[in-house]
Amino acid sequence: GVLGSGDFARSLAVRLVRSGFRVVVGSRNPKRKASLFPAAAEVTFQAEAVKKADVIFVAIFREHYSTLCDLADVLVGKILVDVSNNTEINHHKESNAEYLASLFPACTVVKAFNVVSAWTLQSGARDGNKQVLICSNNQEAKRTIAEIAQVMGFTPVDMGCMASACEIENIPLRLLPAWKIPIFLALGLFLCFFTYNLIRQVIHPYIREQKNKLYKIPIEVVNTTLPCVSYVMLSLVYLPGVLAACSQLYYGTKYRRFPDWLDQWLQHRKQIGLLSFFCAALHAVYSLCLPMRRSHRYLLIETAVKQAMEKKMTIWVEEEVWRMEIYISVGIIALGLLSLLAITSLPSIANSLNWREFSFIQ
Amino acid sequence: GVLGSGDFARSLAVRLVRSGFRVVVGSRNPKRKASLFPAAAEVTFQAEAVKKADVIFVAIFREHYSTLCDLADVLVGKILVDVSNNTEINHHKESNAEYLASLFPACTVVKAFNVVSAWTLQSGARDGNKQVLICSNNQEAKRTIAEIAQVMGFTPVDMGCMASACEIENIPLRLLPAWKIPIFLALGLFLCFFTYNLIRQVIHPYIREQKNKLYKIPIEVVNTTLPCVSYVMLSLVYLPGVLAACSQLYYGTKYRRFPDWLDQWLQHRKQIGLLSFFCAALHAVYSLCLPMRRSHRYLLIETAVKQAMEKKMTIWVEEEVWRMEIYISVGIIALGLLSLLAITSLPSIANSLNWREFSFIQ
Amino acid sequence: GVLGSGDFARSLAVRLVRSGFRVVVGSRNPKRKASLFPAAAEVTFQAEAVKKADVIFVAIFREHYSTLCDLADVLVGKILVDVSNNTEINHHKESNAEYLASLFPACTVVKAFNVVSAWTLQSGARDGNKQVLICSNNQEAKRTIAEIAQVMGFTPVDMGCMASACEIENIPLRLLPAWKIPIFLALGLFLCFFTYNLIRQVIHPYIREQKNKLYKIPIEVVNTTLPCVSYVMLSLVYLPGVLAACSQLYYGTKYRRFPDWLDQWLQHRKQIGLLSFFCAALHAVYSLCLPMRRSHRYLLIETAVKQAMEKKMTIWVEEEVWRMEIYISVGIIALGLLSLLAITSLPSIANSLNWREFSFIQ
Repeated sequence: GVLGSGDFARSLAVRLVRSGFRVVVGSRNPKRKASLFPAAAEVTFQAEAVKKADVIFVAIFREHYSTLCDLADVLVGKILVDVSNNTEINHHKESNAEYLASLFPACTVVKAFNVVSAWTLQSGARDGNKQVLICSNNQEAKRTIAEIAQVMGFTPVDMGCMASACEIENIPLRLLPAWKIPIFLALGLFLCFFTYNLIRQVIHPYIREQKNKLYKIPIEVVNTTLPCVSYVMLSLVYLPGVLAACSQLYYGTKYRRFPDWLDQWLQHRKQIGLLSFFCAALHAVYSLCLPMRRSHRYLLIETAVKQAMEKKMTIWVEEEVWRMEIYISVGIIALGLLSLLAITSLPSIANSLNWREFSFIQ
Repeated sequence: GVLGSGDFARSLAVRLVRSGFRVVVGSRNPKRKASLFPAAAEVTFQAEAVKKADVIFVAIFREHYSTLCDLADVLVGKILVDVSNNTEINHHKESNAEYLASLFPACTVVKAFNVVSAWTLQSGARDGNKQVLICSNNQEAKRTIAEIAQVMGFTPVDMGCMASACEIENIPLRLLPAWKIPIFLALGLFLCFFTYNLIRQVIHPYIREQKNKLYKIPIEVVNTTLPCVSYVMLSLVYLPGVLAACSQLYYGTKYRRFPDWLDQWLQHRKQIGLLSFFCAALHAVYSLCLPMRRSHRYLLIETAVKQAMEKKMTIWVEEEVWRMEIYISVGIIALGLLSLLAITSLPSIANSLNWREFSFIQ
Repeated sequence: GVLGSGDFARSLAVRLVRSGFRVVVGSRNPKRKASLFPAAAEVTFQAEAVKKADVIFVAIFREHYSTLCDLADVLVGKILVDVSNNTEINHHKESNAEYLASLFPACTVVKAFNVVSAWTLQSGARDGNKQVLICSNNQEAKRTIAEIAQVMGFTPVDMGCMASACEIENIPLRLLPAWKIPIFLALGLFLCFFTYNLIRQVIHPYIREQKNKLYKIPIEVVNTTLPCVSYVMLSLVYLPGVLAACSQLYYGTKYRRFPDWLDQWLQHRKQIGLLSFFCAALHAVYSLCLPMRRSHRYLLIETAVKQAMEKKMTIWVEEEVWRMEIYISVGIIALGLLSLLAITSLPSIANSLNWREFSFIQ
């Protein structure tokens, strides 16, 4: 059974029908709404629909839950599936599912399917996340809903008891929250260092010597900026650990909670580290592209021609040769090590490591 | 208990014995077959074996299930594990496990272990997929089999009720079905563009100017072909979404099923996109290798010598310099963005993103 | 309830309090220990604490389990959670959890939380592995502990019955055991080939012709060493499969266990293969860096100047051009194929492939 006639209710009915379930839709105005649903779904009055179904998907807004109170008698003993989402994180004091459970104490309430989009329901689970997070205080009901999700092509994940409902309802509202600060930080650092390098490599020689080096902007200036960003970000990964250790030494205990800013910082270390790796990898690619450029080619030929005309044979500068060889080889080793760190931060690799192995690698 | 004496039955017995279980094998001709099984496994007549065991692995072909009907009395109340596979996808109307359950209504049938190969059973779960997909209508039986699988070194995965048996039986028959069309598409595009570039860069100059440019085939011609393939594939990723939107606007509804060809296309987008990324990455590596070639070196020296002999100092062409700088920097940024897309298509990353985050990145 | 006052007990109490649980700590000397625990946790005598709690975390060493025997009466019917670890793999004959269960047959023992570090408990599950492995012979107790772990921010994983306790207790003691031999092997091979190449490319020309080629050590010598290591490692991946096949042909059966050394070798193939890929990838990066070096630039200019002075126009050697073109293009294809192999060894990718697909790709 499906209660509601919004986008989600209709998508849910479409998917249930296509997965071979018998669907009955409850509506206040079944005649007007019948055309919205697939032909195989029976559209009838709410009380009728509830009587015919054992599992009822409540696809209506939290604000309208109380309108279902008239159906309290027929709902007794049924499984109510709360599929609702909020518009803000932690909008209400108690989760929608817990609120529904408090309205209908004689029903078994299960929180599920809210992490799935209407589009995914319409077209079937394809790319992206196929998981349906399920929680309930009733094991039997949770299992029934898990089996329905399985047949619909999703991967049910047991999230425990009703206390997790709040967490599950917050998930679809998230938009990469842990990445926001690190990304703005990286952009800010990039802008500062880019301006500095632009002045040093392009504007200064132009003003002082009238040399036009504008062609350096897209690659060379960016390429000297990236390792600076990468280094500062990498140091920001290890700094909070040192600060945390200092704070523990100062207060003489490990069990004291860190101040909020430090706690936040400690939580963003992984993202800052991955952005540092991303900048380092881009720096490597930019550097490897340097000899491909026309400007490199022209400068090389120019030097050769100049020397040939001056009849100067050797230009070998041992110190410069060594500096470059060591710079490149240390750079490659650093990139290799950072790659290992980045690989261990993949969820499936991290889950196969115990904490000793994880901290050994870090 | 194990019924059967084929390769799978013997491998299963080997693994069970090594995992510390007491194994009894049921055979029609126990004397002749005893030598095939490990010494620790007791080989006896079928009825004997069934009486002694609580969990019975039915390692015989579906065609011979009916020969077990004589054992119906002793099988009452036992757990039968169906480990069978088919030779074709959806070969029979009902799954083997459901067929077995219909033959022995007094038994509890569990579908399991069919996704595991005989080789994995013999040598223990090492690389690759360690999952054993389990489904049954009986929770208790499912749990028993899950615990056996755990002790044998596999990862049991609950696939819900018996309705999933058909899906589980189809899994081992799959051979990368979603990749076939995209790979043939990529190969076809590669061939077309390769022929075109071969004619343009090698055959045409040879016929018109008698210039031998054959050395360009392994790297330069391939390297101009790859980005063409990558671009066309990338456009094929985004095109079906546009067509789907047009179809929805035309029919005035989101809930109508797409035509089959469009649905198929929508389902292959991820694979087409990954092949597009693969071509783009190869193009990057080929391009980076260009200055390493002897031919590059020779041409460079030739130009330098020519100019030195003509006493021509400057050859700087501002337009060419800029074209190359911008081309390279845009290429690097595009590759960086495609890499992010490719990383989010890893299953463990995709599972940690909600649909809002996933579509934001896409 | 928490029994014990060590680091783990205190961290556990901190996390439980922060997750909203009511915590009572049992101690022999509650007055002295109270200051160690968060203020919200009630610290009292052991018998008192046990009476007040339904779930009791036994955070004391295995050696002191017997001291709890005085509490046997009050412990009847409670859930005891064994969080202990050993100091050596397979130190005792039976696992700590099984030993605890044998001491208190009237209690339900659950093994859990031992794979979590005290630091993770204090600071909350952030990076790395968030899984809590749980096993018990009692389903209901296992579910209760799983729900507690969920609320604490961890991901509970059902590991089946008590027989898995030994395996779970061994996990935190592991330090990348499968990688030790392959890494030492790779380092050994690297050292051998490096010495050989150092003598050939640097020491020999110095002694014979007094040429100073020391600048070649950091990049060129390393770069000729890496592919040798990679090739030998790759052959070591495929060799044991051949030996296993020979052994099976010799003994005329597939079901015989392989000798221990061959079995070990077969188990390390994945790690050897990944290290081979790592060396190949490093070789690719080193090779791509070659034209960036100063020494490359100087040698190029030197050749050009020399030729200009000798008025020699063409230096094109067709054979050398072709050798390099083919060498590079084959190298790129080999690296592309190895990358595919490396990607399929990611756990989340391997889990989405059936064994037919996995062996097809391999």
